[in-house]
Amino acid sequence: MRPIVTLLTDFGLIDPYVGVMKGVILQTSPDVQIIDLSHGVRPQDVTGAAYLLASSWRYFPSGTVHCCVVDPGVGSARKVVGAAVAGHIFVAPDNGLLSLILSDHEPSALIEIENRGQFLKSVSQTFHGRDIFAPTAAVLANGVPLTELGHPLPEPVLIPLPEAVIDEASGEVRGEVIHIDHFGNLITSIRGTQMPWRPRVQIGATQIPHLVKSYADAPADALLALIGSTGRLEISINGGNAAATLSLAIGTSVTVSGMALPE
Amino acid sequence: MRPIVTLLTDFGLIDPYVGVMKGVILQTSPDVQIIDLSHGVRPQDVTGAAYLLASSWRYFPSGTVHCCVVDPGVGSARKVVGAAVAGHIFVAPDNGLLSLILSDHEPSALIEIENRGQFLKSVSQTFHGRDIFAPTAAVLANGVPLTELGHPLPEPVLIPLPEAVIDEASGEVRGEVIHIDHFGNLITSIRGTQMPWRPRVQIGATQIPHLVKSYADAPADALLALIGSTGRLEISINGGNAAATLSLAIGTSVTVSGMALPE
Amino acid sequence: MRPIVTLLTDFGLIDPYVGVMKGVILQTSPDVQIIDLSHGVRPQDVTGAAYLLASSWRYFPSGTVHCCVVDPGVGSARKVVGAAVAGHIFVAPDNGLLSLILSDHEPSALIEIENRGQFLKSVSQTFHGRDIFAPTAAVLANGVPLTELGHPLPEPVLIPLPEAVIDEASGEVRGEVIHIDHFGNLITSIRGTQMPWRPRVQIGATQIPHLVKSYADAPADALLALIGSTGRLEISINGGNAAATLSLAIGTSVTVSGMALPE
Repeated sequence: MRPIVTLLTDFGLIDPYVGVMKGVILQTSPDVQIIDLSHGVRPQDVTGAAYLLASSWRYFPSGTVHCCVVDPGVGSARKVVGAAVAGHIFVAPDNGLLSLILSDHEPSALIEIENRGQFLKSVSQTFHGRDIFAPTAAVLANGVPLTELGHPLPEPVLIPLPEAVIDEASGEVRGEVIHIDHFGNLITSIRGTQMPWRPRVQIGATQIPHLVKSYADAPADALLALIGSTGRLEISINGGNAAATLSLAIGTSVTVSGMALPE
Repeated sequence: MRPIVTLLTDFGLIDPYVGVMKGVILQTSPDVQIIDLSHGVRPQDVTGAAYLLASSWRYFPSGTVHCCVVDPGVGSARKVVGAAVAGHIFVAPDNGLLSLILSDHEPSALIEIENRGQFLKSVSQTFHGRDIFAPTAAVLANGVPLTELGHPLPEPVLIPLPEAVIDEASGEVRGEVIHIDHFGNLITSIRGTQMPWRPRVQIGATQIPHLVKSYADAPADALLALIGSTGRLEISINGGNAAATLSLAIGTSVTVSGMALPE
Repeated sequence: MRPIVTLLTDFGLIDPYVGVMKGVILQTSPDVQIIDLSHGVRPQDVTGAAYLLASSWRYFPSGTVHCCVVDPGVGSARKVVGAAVAGHIFVAPDNGLLSLILSDHEPSALIEIENRGQFLKSVSQTFHGRDIFAPTAAVLANGVPLTELGHPLPEPVLIPLPEAVIDEASGEVRGEVIHIDHFGNLITSIRGTQMPWRPRVQIGATQIPHLVKSYADAPADALLALIGSTGRLEISINGGNAAATLSLAIGTSVTVSGMALPE
């Protein structure tokens, strides 16, 4: 089976940065399948990248190498981390990008990546995607064990990610909008598993009295709430753009109240 | 030869939706070549996707599987259609996306796709691209016959697409703008085969007195009309952006008048 | 090893133009790896494409075929050029797109490409990317020697590219902004090898008193200058967007003054 490397960056697709990373990978691993996860992470938005990665990686085959470069600290003393998790390998700057994955799973290896000969000969201070991350992903795709590329990293950087909380007194679930997708769907930090019985959703000044199963379950142009494809509460408009219509941004509070389950 | 799957969606490239579909395809069909046809279809614009697909598919090798997901009805009772046409296989929501292809060609098989074990174990109500279309395309790419994935669909949904008409009395050809491309070229519903002798083109308040062969045949910054690479009448500006300059949108009427061919 | 074809165009990713080129390539070269270098070149900006290509191609393996289509003269008498340079092969319209590469390297072959049977049967006057460049790149990827696809082209079109100059009297280096990247970094025509001792950078009304090594070497939100990953002087803001903050465009003058090296 051909090895797979996925790429997740904030580089956009206008510049040749992503293409150059692929050239570097192919130099070392000519038979690899390179898949773009996204290059549209907002510039230097490590938190956004962390969510995006956490909702995507498990759809790839076991053995996939995920090469993630959202790297505001490029050229500083920040480390490079490699993590083996559930049969997948992740390479990223040690800036919290892997926080969600490492909080959900015990890694089988967690390594500070060093130059064991795989970095490009001349390493710039501004484009480690090309000089460090791409060639490291390539040797991992070729089957070099992660543990051979550095030494254990006991304390990777973890960033606090906005997780929804359940208020014990009222039973309310309080979260926030963590992502707005291409369709204007507002994806929240509230997980489907946190939903109360008969949920009512409050976002900004708007109340949505119940959940539906699919966009098409609501009338055309109606505001709706559902548990989306990432397992999180999502506020949408059937056939429309909820974010534009409601003028809401990432970070907006969302509250779900409901009834306690009958005992 | 490695199998080929093309992807056509309105998902954009900011979110990881397309990347996740590719991961799912690679789980089942690890050696496939996955080619992006476009992910820039306007959200839920089934008609736009129908034109885009019709102008593109025949440039791919025979045996290619075209996986098309512009799907405003996701989660509703709309069906999933598979069609075998001229050696190619198409998978799409049964919402008219294949209308142009099915009106131009008799399919050798037209199937309502069912879950014969190929869908993801947990099927969401909001992301059938990942849960249904991608894994179905993958098993088709692996060589599973389309007819084994469902039962015949005698009446697929067909949508009326704006076709240019020739006025019998005046001989005028009447069509409309159906697509505006990245360069601002206005592509119309009028086919090159419908053009009269010595054509004059009228679009909005503007008249173009004759056709040229290529953009470079017109002076710099001049408005021009030609038969474009999809075989349809196209209005352009040499070195400029016709749509922006003329402030015209999709749906604008275009009329071609000419002389009858000498008998 | 599987052959590699890179694509560099101004076609954008909304239309299916790039996908169709890939279909055509796969018809002839089914096992090729196709890599997008960029499709975000500004429409018909041959100079921009020339810089982008020159900073990217050497990161690909030897033997790579680079298929470049920024082609304002499509359908005119402009030629098609193939160049073999340092083990790589380039195919492009003969409009200066290869100027930087040809000025930096002596090509081992420089050929005017003709139709030796590889063009599509029907060649349009508006989409040579599909009809001429893609199938030519495919046969080259299959190993057909470049010299078999045409005859020598002694005088390819070369365009003057803005190169920074060193003023002999003052020692000042005078260049300009040649590219603005996705992060708002202003990349200039001034090469790192041209920098004086203790450089001070002047751009518009702004002076930057010294160079740093990396973005993170400057305080957050501070304007900085460094030698970027392409080896050229770059003006940036740590964590910000220099182009938007300074309201500067491509073509803005940049001057570097310094001290003469002690003898």
